This record gives sequence, C-alpha cells and structure tokens, in this order.
Amino acid sequence: MQVSPSEDKIPVVDAPSSPQASSEGLYFCDGLRKVDYVLVFHHRRHGSLRGTGTASVSQDQLSIVSNGNFPPPSGSSDAAAGRGAGLRREEAASVGEVFMELGMARGSEPMEAADHEMHLIRQEFEANLLEAGLEVERDRETKTHGPSFTRIHAPWPVLCREAEFLKIKVPTKQSYELKEESGFGSSMSSVWRKLNQPFEPKVPHQDHGSTKFLSHCFSRDKLHMYNITSKDTFFDNATRGRIVYEILRRTVCVRTCQTIGISTLIANGVYDAAFPLHDGDFKVTGHLEERNDRQVLFEEWARYLAFYKYQPIDLVRKYFGEKIGLYFAWLGVYTQLLIPASIVGIIVFGYGVATVDTNIPSLEMCDERLNFTMCPLCDGACDYWHLSTACGTARASHLFDNPATVFFAIFMSLWAVLFLEHWKRRQISLSFSWDLTGIEEDEEHPRPKYETILLEKRQRKQQQKAKKKKKKKNEMVAEKLTWKDRLPGYFMNISSILFMFGLTFSAVFGVIIYRITISALMAMSPDPETKSNVRVTVTATAVIINLVVILILDEIYGSVALWLTELEIPKTETNFEERLILKAFLLKFMNAYAPIFYVAFFKGRFAGRPGSYVYVFNDYRMEECAPGGCLIELCIQLSIIMLGKQLIQNNIFEIGIPKLKKLIRALKEKKPTQKKDEERPPQQWNLDYALVPFEGLTPEYMEMIIQFGFVSLFVASFPLAPLFALLNNVIEIRLDARKFVTELRRPVAARAKDIGIWYNILSGMGKLSVIINAFVISFTSDFVPRLVYQYMYSQTGTMHGFIDHTLSFFNVSNFKPGTAPHSLDQGDITVCRYKDYREPPWSSDAYQFSKQYWSVLSARLAFVILFQNLVMFLSLIVAWVIPDVPKTIVEQLKREKKLLVDLFLQEEKEKFQLIQSLFVKPNSQSPAAGQAFPVLGRYSTLPSGPTAGDGGGPRARCRAASFSQISDKMSSLPRKENANSKHTAV
Amino acid sequence: MQVSPSEDKIPVVDAPSSPQASSEGLYFCDGLRKVDYVLVFHHRRHGSLRGTGTASVSQDQLSIVSNGNFPPPSGSSDAAAGRGAGLRREEAASVGEVFMELGMARGSEPMEAADHEMHLIRQEFEANLLEAGLEVERDRETKTHGPSFTRIHAPWPVLCREAEFLKIKVPTKQSYELKEESGFGSSMSSVWRKLNQPFEPKVPHQDHGSTKFLSHCFSRDKLHMYNITSKDTFFDNATRGRIVYEILRRTVCVRTCQTIGISTLIANGVYDAAFPLHDGDFKVTGHLEERNDRQVLFEEWARYLAFYKYQPIDLVRKYFGEKIGLYFAWLGVYTQLLIPASIVGIIVFGYGVATVDTNIPSLEMCDERLNFTMCPLCDGACDYWHLSTACGTARASHLFDNPATVFFAIFMSLWAVLFLEHWKRRQISLSFSWDLTGIEEDEEHPRPKYETILLEKRQRKQQQKAKKKKKKKNEMVAEKLTWKDRLPGYFMNISSILFMFGLTFSAVFGVIIYRITISALMAMSPDPETKSNVRVTVTATAVIINLVVILILDEIYGSVALWLTELEIPKTETNFEERLILKAFLLKFMNAYAPIFYVAFFKGRFAGRPGSYVYVFNDYRMEECAPGGCLIELCIQLSIIMLGKQLIQNNIFEIGIPKLKKLIRALKEKKPTQKKDEERPPQQWNLDYALVPFEGLTPEYMEMIIQFGFVSLFVASFPLAPLFALLNNVIEIRLDARKFVTELRRPVAARAKDIGIWYNILSGMGKLSVIINAFVISFTSDFVPRLVYQYMYSQTGTMHGFIDHTLSFFNVSNFKPGTAPHSLDQGDITVCRYKDYREPPWSSDAYQFSKQYWSVLSARLAFVILFQNLVMFLSLIVAWVIPDVPKTIVEQLKREKKLLVDLFLQEEKEKFQLIQSLFVKPNSQSPAAGQAFPVLGRYSTLPSGPTAGDGGGPRARCRAASFSQISDKMSSLPRKENANSKHTAV
Repeated sequence: MQVSPSEDKIPVVDAPSSPQASSEGLYFCDGLRKVDYVLVFHHRRHGSLRGTGTASVSQDQLSIVSNGNFPPPSGSSDAAAGRGAGLRREEAASVGEVFMELGMARGSEPMEAADHEMHLIRQEFEANLLEAGLEVERDRETKTHGPSFTRIHAPWPVLCREAEFLKIKVPTKQSYELKEESGFGSSMSSVWRKLNQPFEPKVPHQDHGSTKFLSHCFSRDKLHMYNITSKDTFFDNATRGRIVYEILRRTVCVRTCQTIGISTLIANGVYDAAFPLHDGDFKVTGHLEERNDRQVLFEEWARYLAFYKYQPIDLVRKYFGEKIGLYFAWLGVYTQLLIPASIVGIIVFGYGVATVDTNIPSLEMCDERLNFTMCPLCDGACDYWHLSTACGTARASHLFDNPATVFFAIFMSLWAVLFLEHWKRRQISLSFSWDLTGIEEDEEHPRPKYETILLEKRQRKQQQKAKKKKKKKNEMVAEKLTWKDRLPGYFMNISSILFMFGLTFSAVFGVIIYRITISALMAMSPDPETKSNVRVTVTATAVIINLVVILILDEIYGSVALWLTELEIPKTETNFEERLILKAFLLKFMNAYAPIFYVAFFKGRFAGRPGSYVYVFNDYRMEECAPGGCLIELCIQLSIIMLGKQLIQNNIFEIGIPKLKKLIRALKEKKPTQKKDEERPPQQWNLDYALVPFEGLTPEYMEMIIQFGFVSLFVASFPLAPLFALLNNVIEIRLDARKFVTELRRPVAARAKDIGIWYNILSGMGKLSVIINAFVISFTSDFVPRLVYQYMYSQTGTMHGFIDHTLSFFNVSNFKPGTAPHSLDQGDITVCRYKDYREPPWSSDAYQFSKQYWSVLSARLAFVILFQNLVMFLSLIVAWVIPDVPKTIVEQLKREKKLLVDLFLQEEKEKFQLIQSLFVKPNSQSPAAGQAFPVLGRYSTLPSGPTAGDGGGPRARCRAASFSQISDKMSSLPRKENANSKHTAV
Repeated sequence: MQVSPSEDKIPVVDAPSSPQASSEGLYFCDGLRKVDYVLVFHHRRHGSLRGTGTASVSQDQLSIVSNGNFPPPSGSSDAAAGRGAGLRREEAASVGEVFMELGMARGSEPMEAADHEMHLIRQEFEANLLEAGLEVERDRETKTHGPSFTRIHAPWPVLCREAEFLKIKVPTKQSYELKEESGFGSSMSSVWRKLNQPFEPKVPHQDHGSTKFLSHCFSRDKLHMYNITSKDTFFDNATRGRIVYEILRRTVCVRTCQTIGISTLIANGVYDAAFPLHDGDFKVTGHLEERNDRQVLFEEWARYLAFYKYQPIDLVRKYFGEKIGLYFAWLGVYTQLLIPASIVGIIVFGYGVATVDTNIPSLEMCDERLNFTMCPLCDGACDYWHLSTACGTARASHLFDNPATVFFAIFMSLWAVLFLEHWKRRQISLSFSWDLTGIEEDEEHPRPKYETILLEKRQRKQQQKAKKKKKKKNEMVAEKLTWKDRLPGYFMNISSILFMFGLTFSAVFGVIIYRITISALMAMSPDPETKSNVRVTVTATAVIINLVVILILDEIYGSVALWLTELEIPKTETNFEERLILKAFLLKFMNAYAPIFYVAFFKGRFAGRPGSYVYVFNDYRMEECAPGGCLIELCIQLSIIMLGKQLIQNNIFEIGIPKLKKLIRALKEKKPTQKKDEERPPQQWNLDYALVPFEGLTPEYMEMIIQFGFVSLFVASFPLAPLFALLNNVIEIRLDARKFVTELRRPVAARAKDIGIWYNILSGMGKLSVIINAFVISFTSDFVPRLVYQYMYSQTGTMHGFIDHTLSFFNVSNFKPGTAPHSLDQGDITVCRYKDYREPPWSSDAYQFSKQYWSVLSARLAFVILFQNLVMFLSLIVAWVIPDVPKTIVEQLKREKKLLVDLFLQEEKEKFQLIQSLFVKPNSQSPAAGQAFPVLGRYSTLPSGPTAGDGGGPRARCRAASFSQISDKMSSLPRKENANSKHTAV
C-alpha cells in the first residue's frame, strides 16, 4: 500500500550515482525507460508541512507507478516488450494503490485548502495518465519547497497506439533509388556538390545518399513493414514528446476539477510547467561521433562561426518538430534570396556613386555660377540663400534617386513574387520529404479562458432558469459563446485599435511639431554655427526620437494585442494565434511605417508657397523637403529606423533580456536549492526547468515580416536595404538557433504543413509594395519630372536647365507683412526662387499651378498606372511560369504511389496465402474459403495482356488498390488549374 | 463450334418481337441483360462478300458470347447471381469458341486486306473484352453494308470490381438527418420553399427530405454496408456506361495492332463509334410515373416552356455525369446572378432616361441659341455646321454616359468577384453532395496521334542505330517526345497565331478604311439626303461588316486552334483540351474584342486638329468620334456585336447546323437501310447511332466566356448588356439541354471536380475588366472632364458652360490650302470650334495643348488609379469575407466523419467478435487469438472518462480510425489560410 513490492527489483531514484542508471538524467531511475516529458509543480513555501506529514510521505514513497492494463505480450512481441513484462505485472497492483492512496489523502488531516485541492487534482490527473498507459516517476524524497518533478515515460504499446491515432508517418522497409541525373547533368551536379561541400553542415546520417525509404502512416497491423531496429529509438525523442503531449492534452480530470488537458491545469496553477526533455547537454564533451542531436545542432547550427553554412533543416525538424523546422527553412530561403537582391542593390548604389559626378542636375545645383537666389526657409529670421549651398544633399540625393532605382523597384517587386513562389516550392518539397502531405488538423480543445467564461455563462443561464421556472423546459444549455458574449470584447477591440492608431499618428505628429519648432528656434538663434547645422541636427534628433518611440510602442502594442485578443475570447489556440497575429501585425506595421509614410508622401506637400505658407499653431510654417528632394529624407528615415530597430531589437531585446530573465530566475532559485546542488549534480530536468519556456514563433516571424516590409515596401528609396537585411538575418538565424538550442526549454514538436497566415501577410505586402513603390518613384523621386523635362521642355534634349525649370519665381514684394527676411543687405533682390511648378508673378494668374505642373502630374500618374500594371502582369507571369510543385517531386510521388501499391499487393497476396493455408487445409469445402477467394480475386481477375507493353498491366494494377494516403499527397498539392483560391478575385 | 449449344435456352436476336425481350431495345435479346455500351462499325460497301461467305456466317451466328472466368457463385450470392449462374456455365464454353473462331477466320479465304485486318482486330479486341468479364452480343444476321452493332453488357462482378478500382462512391445504409433550422429560420425557410415551389422542376425522388445517406467508396469487402436493393439498378446507367468505357479504354489489342483502348481503334477506323445507350425514347408515351430519366429531363428541363424553373442538376449529373452536370450548374449560377445585374443595369439605364431632359450638357448642346459654329467634318466638301444639329446623339449619349455608369462599373466589377466566389461555394457544395471530394485524376493514356508519332520516332531511332552499330548499345529507346520533336509544331503555332493576330487587326483596319472612304465619298455626294445620313449609314454598315467578319473568323479560328493544337502533339487528352482552350480563347477573344477596343481607346484620338489633320493614304482624314462622345459609338458597337453574335450563333449555328447535319446523315443512311426499316422497328442503338456524337463542352463554355466578356469588360458603356445576356442564357440553357437530351448520343459520364481552366479564364477576365472599365470611364466617357469642369473651372459650380469649355477655337485662315470648305456663304465666319483642349489662336503657343488639357488628363489618370485600386481592394474584401466552404458543409463534413468512424468501429467490433468466435472456441490458447485482440484493443484502450463531457471520448475515438476518404474531403477543401495559390502573386 505504501511502497510497491517491486522496489528491490527496480532501481529507485536515489541511485543516480550508478553510471548505467544516471545516463545524463534522461532516464527513469531504472536507467532503461526514457523520460519523455516532465511535469513540474512548486511546493508553496507556506505549505503546512506539519499537517501533511504522513500523507506526503505515503505519496512520495510511491516513487514509480505505472499501469498494467495492457494485453499480455503476444507471441509476436519482441525483446522490449519481454523486458517490460516483468515490470508490468507488479505495476498492475500499483494502479490500485494510486486510487487507494487518493482515498487516503482525502481522509488525512486537511492541508492548507488550496494546496490540498491542487494536490488532489494532481493525483487524479496522474492516475488518469497511468490509466492511459503512461509510466510515471516522482521524486522520492520529501520536499518542502522548490520544484518537484513528475517524469513521464511512454512505453512502446502506448507509442504505437498514439502513433496510429496521430497518423504519424514512419519509414517502411521499402526503399527506392532517387533518379540520378545522367550525362552532363550528373557531372554538373557533382561539381555543384563539391563546390557546396564547405557550406554543408556536418550532420551524421544526414544524407542517405540517393535512397529514400517509402513512408507510411504507422499502423500496428503492419509492424513487419516498418524498419524497426529498436523499439526504443524507432520513434525519435521529438515524436515521443509529441505523443505524450497528445495524451496530456486530452487526459481529463473529472472528479476534482472538471477540466481537460495539461494546459488548463497549468493555467490554473496546478502545475507550473510541462515540457519534454532536451537530448542532454549541448556542450560537446565526449567523442565527436557520440554527439547527441542537441550537440550536433549546437556545433553545426547554433554557432555564429557557422554563419556561412546551410542549416541542417532536417535535423532541426527532427529535434524541434515541423513547425519550427518550417520557420527556419523559411528564414533560410528568405536569407538566401536576399543575396541576389543585395548584390543588385549594391550595383544600383554603385551606379549612383559612379554617375554622381556626371549627373547634370546635381552639377547644376552645385554650380555657383548659376546663382539661384532661393526664398528664405523660415519667416523673418531666415535670409535668402543660394541653391549651391545645398550641393551636398543634391549629390547625396543622386546616390539614391537615379534611373537605376526604377529598375531596382521593378526588380524588387518581381523578387518578392519570386521569393513567395520559391518558398511555395520549397514548402512542398519539405512537406514531401517530411511526409506532411495529407495531414489533417487535429480538432482542438477550447482554450482554458474560453472554458471558464463558458462555464460562467452556463451557470448564469441556469440561475436565470431557476428564477423563471415557468418558461418551457427545452431551452438549451449554452453550448458556445455567441457574438453577444463577445460584443464587449469586440467593442473594446475596435476602440482600442482606433486609440492606438491615434497614438501612432500623434507620435508622428509630435515629431513633426518637434522638428518644426526646433528648426524655427534654431534658425532664430544668433549663433551662425547652430544655424548652419539646423537641418542635420533636427533631422538626426527627430529620427532618433522616432526610433525610440517606435521601439517603445512596439513593445506596448505587443502586449496590447495580446490583451485585446484575450478579450475576444477565441475558442481555440489556433484561432487565438491567428487573431493575435493579425492585430499585432496591424499595430506594429502602422507603428513602424507611419513616419516613413509621412516622409514619403506627405512631407513638404502641404507647405504652401512663399507668400501663402501653411502654418500650424498659427506660428510655425509646415516643413518642406530638403532641396535635394524628399527621397533623400525618406532614405535617411528608412535606413535609421531599419538599422536601429534591427540592432536594438536584436542586441538588447533578443540577447539581453533573456539573459537578464535567466539571471533573475537563477537568483530566485539559488537560495533554496543551494544546498541540494551540493548534494548531487542537477538532473536534466532540473537544467531544463531553469531554461526559459518556449512561447511561440510569433515574435520571430513578426520581426522578419516587418523587415520584409523595409526590404520591399520602400525599397525604391534605399537600395541598400536588402544588404542590411541580409547582414541582420545571417546573424539572426544563428541567434535564434542558439536561443532554441541553449536557452529555451524544448518545445513540443508541433506539426504544421505550412507557415499559415504569414504567407498571406507576405503576399499582401508584396502586392502593397508594387503600388507603394510606384508612388515613391513617381511622386517622391524626381525621376518623372526629369523625364518630362528631357522629352517635353528641354531645348537641347539634355538635362541642362532642369534645375531652372523646376524653380518658380516669387516677387519679394508679395511677402506678407512680417514674413520677409529681417536682414538688411537684400536691397537688390526683387525675386526669389522656390521649388514648385507655378506661374511667375508677371503671369495673368500669378502663383497658380502652371501648365508644367499639370503635365508633370499627368506623367507621374501615368507612370503609376504603367508601373503598377506592368509589374502586376510580370508577377502573374512569373507566378505562372514557376510550377508550384517541382517536377522531381511529381515524379517521385508517382513512383512512391506505384511502389506502395506494389508493396501492399504483395502483402495482400501473402495474407491471402496465409488465410488459404489456414482455412483450406482443415476443411477445404467450407463457405469461408469461398469468401476468402475474392480477396485475391479482386486483383487477379484484372486483365493484363501478356505483352501489355505500354503500361496497361501495371497501370491497371496501380488503380486497383485504394491507398488514399498517396492520393492525399497528390490531391493536396496545389494544382495550377484548380487553384480557385481566395486571391483570384482581384 | 458454330452456334452455342444454349441457343434454345437463350432468346436470340431475331426474337425482338416478343414483348418481354424487346424492352425498348435496351437489353440483350434475353431481355435481362442491359446494354451498357454499343460499338459500331460499318461494313464497307466494297466488302467482298463472296469470299467471306462461310467465315462471316460462322461469326455472325455466334450471336451471344460471354466469358465465364468468374468464380462459381459463393454461398452469399443473391438472386441475380443465381439467375445468371445458369447462363454462365454455357458461356464458359463459348469463350473457347471465340478463340477457335478467330483461328478459323484466319484460315479462311482472304478478305479484302484492310477489311480483313480490321475484322481481325475487332475479333481480338472483343475477345479481350470477354476476357475482362464483359458480355458481348452481336447482330446475328449477315450484313453486307450499313452499321453493325456490338452490344456490351457489364455483369455485376465486373461492375463491382471496376467500381472498386474507380473508387466510385456509393450510398451506404447509414443515413443521417440534415440539421433543421429551428424557430424563425425554420419558418422562413418553409415560406421560401413554398415560394419556390412553382420554380422547382418535378423530378421524382429528387428531394429525399432532410435525410442524407452516408456515402463511401465502393468496396467488395463491405457489400453488406451498402443500400443494395437490386444488383441491376444499384449502379445507374451513367455509372455502368462509365465502367464499361473504362474497360474499353484500357483493353489492349496486342497481336493484331499493338494499341490500347477504343479511342485508338476508332481513330484507326476499326470501329466507327462507341457510345453508351440513352435510357430510351425521350418522348413521354406511358404514364407520368413511369417516365425514364431521359423523359423526365426532356419534360422538366429541355423544354423552352420550363425556362423559369430551376434545373434538375442532380438528375442531369446522374444522367450525363459530373462534367456536364458542372457545366449546367455553372451556367445556372451565372444566369441566376445575371438577374440582379440586369436589374441594376435597367435602373442605371432608367436613370439616364429620366435625367436626359435635365442634363445641362445635352441641353446646352441642343440649345440653338448658343450657336456653336463647328469646323467642317471633312476637307473641302463639308461645310461648317452647328452643334445643335447633333442634339440627337448628345441626348442618346447621356443615356449611357452619366454618373450612374461609374457606379455601375464598380458594381459590375464586384459582381464579377461575387460571381466567382459564389460559384466556388456552389462547386464545393456540389462536390460534397455528389461525393467528388478526394477523387484523383485517372492516369491517362497518350492520345492516338501522340502514339503514332512516338512510334515513328522509335522506328527512326532504330534505323539510325542499325546504321551506326558502332555506337554503344545502351542508348535508350525514345520513351517520350521531347521539345525537339515538337519544335516545328511550336514554331508553326507561334507564326500562325501571329498571323491570325495580324489578320484580325487588318480586318479591323479594313473596316476603318471602309468607314473613312465611304463617309468621304458620301460627303462629296451632291444628294443632300445622302449627306445627312452619312454617319448613320456608315456606322451601321461598318458594324455589320465587323459582325460578319467576326462570325466568319470565329469559325475559322476554331478550326485553326484545333489544327495548331494537333501540331503540338500533346500527350494526353486533358493536355490537348487545355492547350486547345487557351489557343481558341486567345484567338476568339482577340477577334471579338479588337474592334471594340479600337472604338473604346483609339478612335478619334489620332485625328489631329483642324489645320493639321492626320491623313491615311494621303487623302482620307482619320475618323473622329461623334459629337456626343465616343461612348455612344462604343455602345452601338458593343450592343450590335453582342446581340448579333448571340442571335446568329444561337439560331443558325446551334440550332440550324446540327439539324442540317442530321438531315444529311439521314439522307446518307436512308437508302441502304430503307428496306430494313420496313422489316422491324429500329432498336435504341439504331436510334442513338443516328444522333450526333458528343464532342466536348469546349464550344459551350467558350460561347459563355466570350459573353461574360461582353458583360464585364466594357459594361461601363452599355448597362443593358447583362439584361441581353440574361435573355440569351435563359434560352441557351434550354437549347443546350435539348441538344443533350434529344440530339446528341449519350456522352460517357465523365468525372470532374471543377470546371478547370475556365475558372482561371473567368478570373483573369474579372481582373482585366477592372482596368478596362477604369479606362473606359475616365477616357472614353465624359465623366471626368465634367467633374473637373464643375469643381475647377465652373464659375457657378454648376455644369453651365461645359460645352463651351470643351470646344477650342480655330482661326479659319489657318486651314491648309484646299482643305477649307468650298461653299461660298461663309464670309462672316472667322473662327470655328472643335472638340479638344487646345490653346486658342490668339495665344502665344496657339493650338498647343492647354492647361485644361493637362489638368483633365491628370484627373483622368488619377481616376484610373483610384478606381483600379479601390475596386481591387473591395474585391479582395469581398473574396475574403465570403468563406470558400459554406458553413453548413463544414458542419456536415464533420458529422459525416464522425458517423462514418462510428460505423466502421461498429463493424470492426463485429468482425472482431466473429474472429473471436471462430478462433477462440476451437483452440482458445492459440497465438492467433492474441494477435486478434489488438484489433479491438486499439479502440478500447483509449481513455474515456466516465463523464468526459466535452467530447473527450468521442473526439478521441474520432481520431482513432483512419478513414482518409473523409480527411480527403477536409483537406481538399480550399482553406483561407493555405490558399497559397497561383494568383496570390499580384
């Protein structure tokens, strides 16, 4: 009743010093059963130890409990089952004990109420786990505080059962050779392989050459088909973890707390954490060949020095599961494709650098002989100035604002399409090689929060019912939350999001005000040095303020989005994630791009003209763009925000904060566990518990998507953006890898067949980028006005005279009183120039927009239409030309289908012969034999001409068997003709 | 050896007069076995009857042949099998006979070589059919000419076998209630049903109330699960036909002709035709209740008087198969959705009619007091004219060119999106109720043409090999055609298509020349009546010429596309169809829309201005638009081409030509068969053979798609287009239905899960329509200039003075010599007006584009950008808001999944109990029993808490079984998040 009678046979917990049993703390104390999952709960400090003395001892002494409701091992069972058989017989008894022990715990003196309840819930939950076939081990010694671990092992029959339910695909014995290219292709690919050699990570058994094993959904009926070398390692650790998680997720707790699943228990504080174990320490200690997967990942993937290597994606997937594998694969594809974009960007920038000295407009601007007298930049305090003093910005502007930029914008729009298409192919290749085709989404449990609120609603309804008993009885109990229940949440959502939008806009506006006031104040300063640096100082400080505001709001918006999504009470976790992503994306996108949008499309457009400037707060003139054009300002804004965001978020938020958190945790834990650390080395579960829990990929994706926006949306203004993104991502991959390998608890290996909503966001951004780049080129840059000048107005057909053409005349006598410059030495100035297309003062409709203005505007708009439709058309063609499914995959799928059918036919035949031999021999005339015949008959009656030649025979047989897992594969692949998707509409 | 010994038992062919045996000619002469397929070949007239005397008799006397290689009927067999058992025993012998007979035919005197060979091929082919399990009946009497029929019957075992291979879904016994709406929804839907009553076709057993039978892929192992009332009717006639076709398609002919499938044999002339039989006569003769499906279709669907009814789509699908069913369903959805579009179109038109008398621009144009003197319309001969004489066109123009048109254009763009989305939902609903989800494409045979060319290539290669024997031996035999083989085809294709494009453009240009010359000639005519009717006459005749050219080229292009696609040598029929459709669409689209495009965007834009007109052939001025604007011309062009095309193609091509063909066929056949007709009434196969063979749905779809173009592409100019399309389609549906029911041979029931490439074409046209409508509104209509005038130039803010504003001044002294009007009474005219925005003669840059021109152009372009992006955005939202899969379907799928799993679990349990009772009783300790346990164990070991409540139990069980046909359904439905389709790219 207290200690299981098998204690002398099974090594107990306090024997970890024996070398075989310890095994780096990855096994139960018998050293045989792998720890697949760990549940942790904290003993509360205030736990009344006195009262629970006997109860806790009796509980803790039950160190290994296990259930025994398995069928006795059958004749076909293997060694592992045989080994387990000895254990199980005794365990069968211990199940009874658990229940009795539960009863006892109830009977014992009351613990502190909450603690006691939790204790009971834990006991019921773990008993139910045992009933589900899992094996459980608890810490033996009596703990009064600190974490207490419950370790879970899934034995082979449980693994088999669950693998079948989860339709986990496993390799069969059947393998086939991948088609080798012959001739020229072959030698090319071997050269390629040799060139790639240094970039390949050194991962053992990664490339199984050109052989691929057919895989098939696991089924206990077909055990002989699979390549089972050892039952302990057939399912890898990630899969085992997933299987246990699956059981934990659906195990109910009826008597004590009416909930389902471990996540609710964690949410209710019954447990503190639940996680699968890492494969061991990540530091390589032993021989290179004996590295575990975590060590391999650390060495070959998570080191910064490995930055030039490909990622060992298959191993990542094996260790962390498909969802995380897909993230890193996606990141890899993105980073790889940034390389050509960076190169083209550098070339375009180089073109700007090379032509800056021959570019006529900037030469004209710098030409002091042309001597354009410009109207003052501020009222009163500022003086007239010469355009040639702005020579610097003009030259800088040319670096980014040159004809190559147009080419680059088109290139990058197509690049975005290409990237998405390429990723689609890669995703399909991966889901083929990872056997993800045809997986279906699991039905999900409602989130704990949802359940709580539903419960409340039910109770409320029942109370109402109790009140009005006259009403008809058949009123249904509330089965789900309707929109009425969510209305306050939705309302809160909309108002909050509007408020956040307002906040963002006011932040942008605040910075504008800052810029306007500071430049006005500085312009009034008597110090000439201050005056000369106005623009640089103001721009730099303003952008930095912008950056800081963005970073702060970014964090705030992240939390707000989370809070708002909770208010919506989404039913399932997927639902929750999707809504959170959309909201967070909307807010963060607004936040990051609002100032950039302002600079690109609004700055300087509402400044008015000399003589009728637009004022804010009655005093300050609206700001204008630099003389070199708005594009250079956009470029500065974009580059600083992009670089600053990446550097600060990467360095401080991604490296610093986790370290800080870890430090705090360590400090917290240290005091109580200090003395134990001295007693014995920490087990793997102790080490893992000290790590940070994994909290989803959303932040990682979000960061990259925002970056993708910098690379695609305004790329026309900053051709070096891809380069900086590339540099960042090379580090980012290793940084993330390091985080996953060393700093996070191992996440449960989640399945996913695509990157989900992120793809749609990416694709939406790609579309948006086309129109934004069209507008940037035509409205922000000077590209169109130059073209118009050259072909419509220029006398010589060259750019000479362009600057003169863009400047309008202003009669200084038209200044409003008090706004003319106060300085004295201006007697000879009668007209000043300003950058706009307006009629000169001597025209009949002075200061109205001139014909040039309208013709340039027409050209700008025509360019937008042309650019947008051209790029959209090209994108369609690119997407149409690149097939979604690589040809090799299609061929392999066909081959696999054929092979699998052959395999099953073979098996069917054998089975038939077996049945025949069983039935026919004893009573050859029995009716059962007649029934058995058709089993084979269905294949043998098929016509197969003796020389069917063109595949009549095999084809017919192919169709014969109905193995829909392959048809799954075929039908789940997106096909060109059938892609009647959501996005066809536009 | 010559006559099967069972002749006395089985009624032979010459007994059709016995009432039971005739059965309307749908059965073998035994009156029991249904004729599922008919093969026809023609005896050549020159057939040497003398020589083959004995052979043909021996062949023809073998009237009923059948194979007997079935297992003897098992104990579980039912009555039908029992009935057939008697026959089969004798038939077993006749198989031997066939082969011997084949041998004999060879031994007999030589026929005419080709005929003899065909005869042998037919014999081998039919022998192979027998071997595949089919039963075959031939005409008995010796025929010397005329068609000879081979009738094929598929017995139950063959049907079962093939249904299993083809994964045909059949209803199981399990049924479930569809969810009934309760409360308000229920009463609403019953009211709706009552309102709909008169529109519902009267189809027996169509609505099985609210019960739906679960369906499942047919499997011979699970016969007890299906709802088999009679083995003769379990598979309907369409399915039987499909099954036989499947066998015909893959049956090989090795010894005599090295080919595979009936289509090759037909292509080679071995057979003339092969078709399944109709269900009987379509004229209702007997009682209403006893109508066969063909009669029901004829009465309820194919009559013009039924035009207001819904289509009995389910019956159409049952009779003609899914592919044709989908076509009619699509046509129905399209026609239904045309109703709201027509209504809105009528309202928009009505708005134009109602406001024509208050519309200021047209009032101003008609106002004789304003007295605008316009510049002459042609050189010399024409005089100055007053604008008020063009009052009529101005008023007509307002009917189509008013602000409501802009709204209508936006509406129709969204309508197109809505239509596509709605169709997507309908398609998914249909594929759910027709059990099409998860079907996979059959692997297809190469087309006969492809095989022939491949054979030639192989032979060529072998000859080459034979020549250069020194080369290494392992050179592969050509396995497929590469691009090299197709190069001439591609080259021919591109050049031909370019040539066709050129042809179309020259046709358009020719009509332009016609218009220019005729109007010039008519203007020079002295007759004043001729002069006054110039514009009407010229426009009308030109459009009619255009129409005739379009109709002729349409037919030519259809054949050219076919010819070009043959040149490309596509491998499979699907491939062929796709390429053909694309090519035909491209050519026909160009052909139908080129003149319309010209009028919309080019006419009048290159006419120059007074004093510097543009001339073609040095003599004729380029044509201008009517004074009322180009839109009215576009409207006339569009309406005449659309209506003319529909009327002529519908009436002449679709009704007339088939009738003519039938007549010709009948005349051809009449003479030889005359005497036989007197002998006995024609059998069903004779009747069906006299019908026109079915040649695919491509022309039907193509007609509708071109119509969809008229409705969507230029709808801004002709709001009544949807109405005319609706009227046409109401007739079209019944016309097509009539054709299918009465005039075509029954097509093989082909499966299809969507309308394929047509959807993409539709979606592409929807996208194109947005940009085209944007351009039509902003450039062809006067909408934008009016807006600009009202808000930028009008003094009063009204439209008064608009006409004056759009007319520029021309100083008549600036006419080039000889181009000024020759008439004499013009002394007082110094300036004339013309429609353009140009500087007046007294300006410094006279006759240059004025500022107004550029501002209007800017506004036009801005409008295009705004319209395009707004509509695209709205379309995206519409597509996003409407879920692809209707909610009810999702729920039903979930329920079906659950029910199916339950059903199978039940069955599994029963099976297990059976095995247990079999195994355990005799030797209860055998290892086999241990093996059998897990079968049940895999479900019973699942934890299912006693009060699992929230679905823990059923959910867990749901996942338990792996019935992928349902997961197929779930995964094949397009999901929002995963719709990474081709079209996301733009």
